[in-house]
Amino acid sequence: MNTITPLQDHACLLVSGPDQPGIVAAVSALTARHKGNIVTLHQYSDDPTGGDFFQRVVFHRPGLAAAIPEIEADLTSTLSSLGMTWTLTDQAVPKRMAVLASTSDHCLLDLLWRHRRGELPVHIPMVISNHTTTAEDVRAFGVPFFHVPSQGPDKAEAEKRILELLAGNVDFVVLARYMQILSGDFLRRVGVPVINIHHSFLPAFIGAAPYRKAKERGVKLIGATSHYVTEDLDEGPIIEQDVVRVTHDDTAADLQRRGADVERAVLSRAVLWHAQDRVIPHGSSTIVF
Amino acid sequence: MNTITPLQDHACLLVSGPDQPGIVAAVSALTARHKGNIVTLHQYSDDPTGGDFFQRVVFHRPGLAAAIPEIEADLTSTLSSLGMTWTLTDQAVPKRMAVLASTSDHCLLDLLWRHRRGELPVHIPMVISNHTTTAEDVRAFGVPFFHVPSQGPDKAEAEKRILELLAGNVDFVVLARYMQILSGDFLRRVGVPVINIHHSFLPAFIGAAPYRKAKERGVKLIGATSHYVTEDLDEGPIIEQDVVRVTHDDTAADLQRRGADVERAVLSRAVLWHAQDRVIPHGSSTIVF
Amino acid sequence: MNTITPLQDHACLLVSGPDQPGIVAAVSALTARHKGNIVTLHQYSDDPTGGDFFQRVVFHRPGLAAAIPEIEADLTSTLSSLGMTWTLTDQAVPKRMAVLASTSDHCLLDLLWRHRRGELPVHIPMVISNHTTTAEDVRAFGVPFFHVPSQGPDKAEAEKRILELLAGNVDFVVLARYMQILSGDFLRRVGVPVINIHHSFLPAFIGAAPYRKAKERGVKLIGATSHYVTEDLDEGPIIEQDVVRVTHDDTAADLQRRGADVERAVLSRAVLWHAQDRVIPHGSSTIVF
Amino acid sequence: MNTITPLQDHACLLVSGPDQPGIVAAVSALTARHKGNIVTLHQYSDDPTGGDFFQRVVFHRPGLAAAIPEIEADLTSTLSSLGMTWTLTDQAVPKRMAVLASTSDHCLLDLLWRHRRGELPVHIPMVISNHTTTAEDVRAFGVPFFHVPSQGPDKAEAEKRILELLAGNVDFVVLARYMQILSGDFLRRVGVPVINIHHSFLPAFIGAAPYRKAKERGVKLIGATSHYVTEDLDEGPIIEQDVVRVTHDDTAADLQRRGADVERAVLSRAVLWHAQDRVIPHGSSTIVF
Repeated sequence: MNTITPLQDHACLLVSGPDQPGIVAAVSALTARHKGNIVTLHQYSDDPTGGDFFQRVVFHRPGLAAAIPEIEADLTSTLSSLGMTWTLTDQAVPKRMAVLASTSDHCLLDLLWRHRRGELPVHIPMVISNHTTTAEDVRAFGVPFFHVPSQGPDKAEAEKRILELLAGNVDFVVLARYMQILSGDFLRRVGVPVINIHHSFLPAFIGAAPYRKAKERGVKLIGATSHYVTEDLDEGPIIEQDVVRVTHDDTAADLQRRGADVERAVLSRAVLWHAQDRVIPHGSSTIVF
Repeated sequence: MNTITPLQDHACLLVSGPDQPGIVAAVSALTARHKGNIVTLHQYSDDPTGGDFFQRVVFHRPGLAAAIPEIEADLTSTLSSLGMTWTLTDQAVPKRMAVLASTSDHCLLDLLWRHRRGELPVHIPMVISNHTTTAEDVRAFGVPFFHVPSQGPDKAEAEKRILELLAGNVDFVVLARYMQILSGDFLRRVGVPVINIHHSFLPAFIGAAPYRKAKERGVKLIGATSHYVTEDLDEGPIIEQDVVRVTHDDTAADLQRRGADVERAVLSRAVLWHAQDRVIPHGSSTIVF
Repeated sequence: MNTITPLQDHACLLVSGPDQPGIVAAVSALTARHKGNIVTLHQYSDDPTGGDFFQRVVFHRPGLAAAIPEIEADLTSTLSSLGMTWTLTDQAVPKRMAVLASTSDHCLLDLLWRHRRGELPVHIPMVISNHTTTAEDVRAFGVPFFHVPSQGPDKAEAEKRILELLAGNVDFVVLARYMQILSGDFLRRVGVPVINIHHSFLPAFIGAAPYRKAKERGVKLIGATSHYVTEDLDEGPIIEQDVVRVTHDDTAADLQRRGADVERAVLSRAVLWHAQDRVIPHGSSTIVF
Repeated sequence: MNTITPLQDHACLLVSGPDQPGIVAAVSALTARHKGNIVTLHQYSDDPTGGDFFQRVVFHRPGLAAAIPEIEADLTSTLSSLGMTWTLTDQAVPKRMAVLASTSDHCLLDLLWRHRRGELPVHIPMVISNHTTTAEDVRAFGVPFFHVPSQGPDKAEAEKRILELLAGNVDFVVLARYMQILSGDFLRRVGVPVINIHHSFLPAFIGAAPYRKAKERGVKLIGATSHYVTEDLDEGPIIEQDVVRVTHDDTAADLQRRGADVERAVLSRAVLWHAQDRVIPHGSSTIVF
């Protein structure tokens, strides 16, 4: 009853590029001439004069799958010539999401459980972990679990193994408290977006042990940040953040325990929005429709 | 630097009515044929199949003021024939807002002060109060103050006097903790929207003394609600709400003091959004773009 | 690392009753004369003149278990004679918590996960459900699951069966979205506190289908409330509440999905605080230290 | 009705120092032997084994003013000998608070309004500004205004003038968006606590232009932080923080405008708590009772 059903015959079109008069009219005329009925439209310009333009349109079009090539050809001739970038996705086709995890299970289980409830419109072809702690839980959800150890000098080897597992099988990757730093080489080769959850309100407490640092600094709120992963550690475009109030009475362990609740909530929202094509990265920031 | 400047040559078009294919395209074609460049567009359908459609478009059109009659004629022939309702406003023309208050000054002063800072794009032709407590403060902001007593049997007389003051002079009315219940007769005759701030999280604690009731019920959060006023007391369409956490340690007076902060914040947001044509009432609810 | 370890040789003393001079001194002298070192003390008076007094003291006392009878005798002679009520608990002994659930699993699984992570200092001797939906999940946590159907005319029979299962085995009961209304007879006979989660910000939307009602009323925040169960439905003392912001764009199903996150968070906090002896009911309200 | 009335014959005792058995009992015995009735007591130990102890006690004692010397003598002999630090204040005597401001008026006016409403239990002997922008507003509240320009090479001269104005006249100083960095020399000589409001969620966006940086970094929440001022800029003990949610649609000016609301709320809470002797600085952190 509260599931998110994949929408049959609904397309999501994301458009971005230099703002210019007539863009909205051009896109809506295009959808109209392909018999699409716009059901949701979001639009944003970061500066009406010489800024960038972003649009998300969901339209209903009976027989969508067969019509996609024709619509894409029109998009190329209509939008690409204006210097605009676009993607068109069939909302009936769930994205394939791999999850990488370590020993902490709160983010991982929250994703698997939401998926089982029908709240995350994705397929989960695999969970990969550098530990075996969560193997039994993962498989109980009917999801394949692969153990790729990462200790010691074999980090490059581990990354190579992970890339082999992912290749051709996934549309995006989620780091659900995966406690290894991925190399720039890995990120260049993975070829799909990678979403991370960082256990602080970035840019505060960049790096390791943020809850301990938060306790030492005596902050009155702690937070979590989900962002796309880039080669600059903890600097990728932020998708979602949230915080929770703490007091002097909370120990560093309390912060960690309470922060875990914020982490799983923030990561789940970020993953849902990405799965629904609601997020457009833009430089070091994101547009979230 | 953080003021909200009235936008020259920008029109805001609100459209609502039965959802139907091609509405977005029809509106964007119309703005294009009047040389309008869409800078912001929000759209919402409460049900893609047979539901209602709502749209807010802001477009830039050099020489807007002179073009408005022509655009309105086109809107009538294009949209009214589809059963759609619309309003077109020139964003360079601030709405005229009257404020009604009693003895509490927190909501009133917050509105006047935001207005002086340039954060509320309205004109304030008058403040009306059934007490004289705030007269000096109001006039220090350069705003006319009228005292209309309401005690005793002269309530109908007071409402008549208020209607005379408002007639033709205002585009909407704000009840900033005005402690009189306006009659159905007044509401039918005032002819402009009336926005109220209620000192509880409606529909909890309808009626008088909500903070005392909240203390008795032992709630852990208290709130405030801004809504359009209808004849059904505390039942009008909600524009904005917010809450703040309280504990057993807070007395009823503490709740009142802390609630006052929520009241002024919620009312200020509701007034700003109304002034910016962001709110469309829809039955007992609102669409807030 | 972020577990909540039961504290060896630590006692928690809750005191409440008519406020009077010297109570704090009397309690701290008592703990001192039993060689207890106070590590945490919270105190609250709802009215310094003729009001009620509440205190929570945690003290460290080597060899606590053996000393408890002697301390209790002293508490009786010192505090009971002043008309005060008190309870003394050994913090090394986890409370035994039964969970009643129906088909929704979000609150139930959240409690079981937290318990497995060591974040809930309780024992869970059983889960009882009027459906079998969650049986497999529950048993995977190593927790016994009992199916007690409640459909049709056998409600009294079902309650009798539940009482038999609980008798002598539990210290409190949690209704984790248990969709049956417990009779007054059940509540009088169960003999332990019963904690419920209600899917609205009480007292708004009392009764059934609160998310549908919230959608109809057009509220801008939805919430959840955890409270002790009394014979007056949805009127028991509130332990914890929280809310989340929603918009016109959220459907009733969205409200239900997003509300589920608030429900499980609020219930988990209420259960933790009850397990830690932090909550003192007081009339229709609670003191939460 | 929602004012905070200074409590006659009530003393507030703050105690801190090395934790040790019997401290709570010693303090409550001391208040009892001076005929004080404890009405509020908060206590915190950062580590029961070898940590630090903090306590706040409010007690009622008829004829307090005359008894203070005797109580202080007892505190010296009882607590100072245990290595504890303490302060005793008469709650009927409001603290004297100076406000330093520049051109922004939101924090300054908020403090003056709350003070006029009886919500801030302080005296305000003066406002000092390096601009004259707010002079008329301040004097309308019946508060003396002093203009001390700070441009150019005369910074040391300005600080000297400010110290002369403050000397002997104030118990604490509030920087209500005072846009000058106070020298270490000033801080050492001023001799009273100085409270600042920083327009970011510290430690994120330390230094100048935090809203611009927040916009560039694409954060989804912005905040404000009130802290005691130390020689290390933006590093002093944090008293209070809060945040508000923002989106990609908010410009840097929007962030500034919305952040101003958080700033004045956070500063007002911090000032209230300091005025009520609820805050104990502890290293780079604070205990807030």
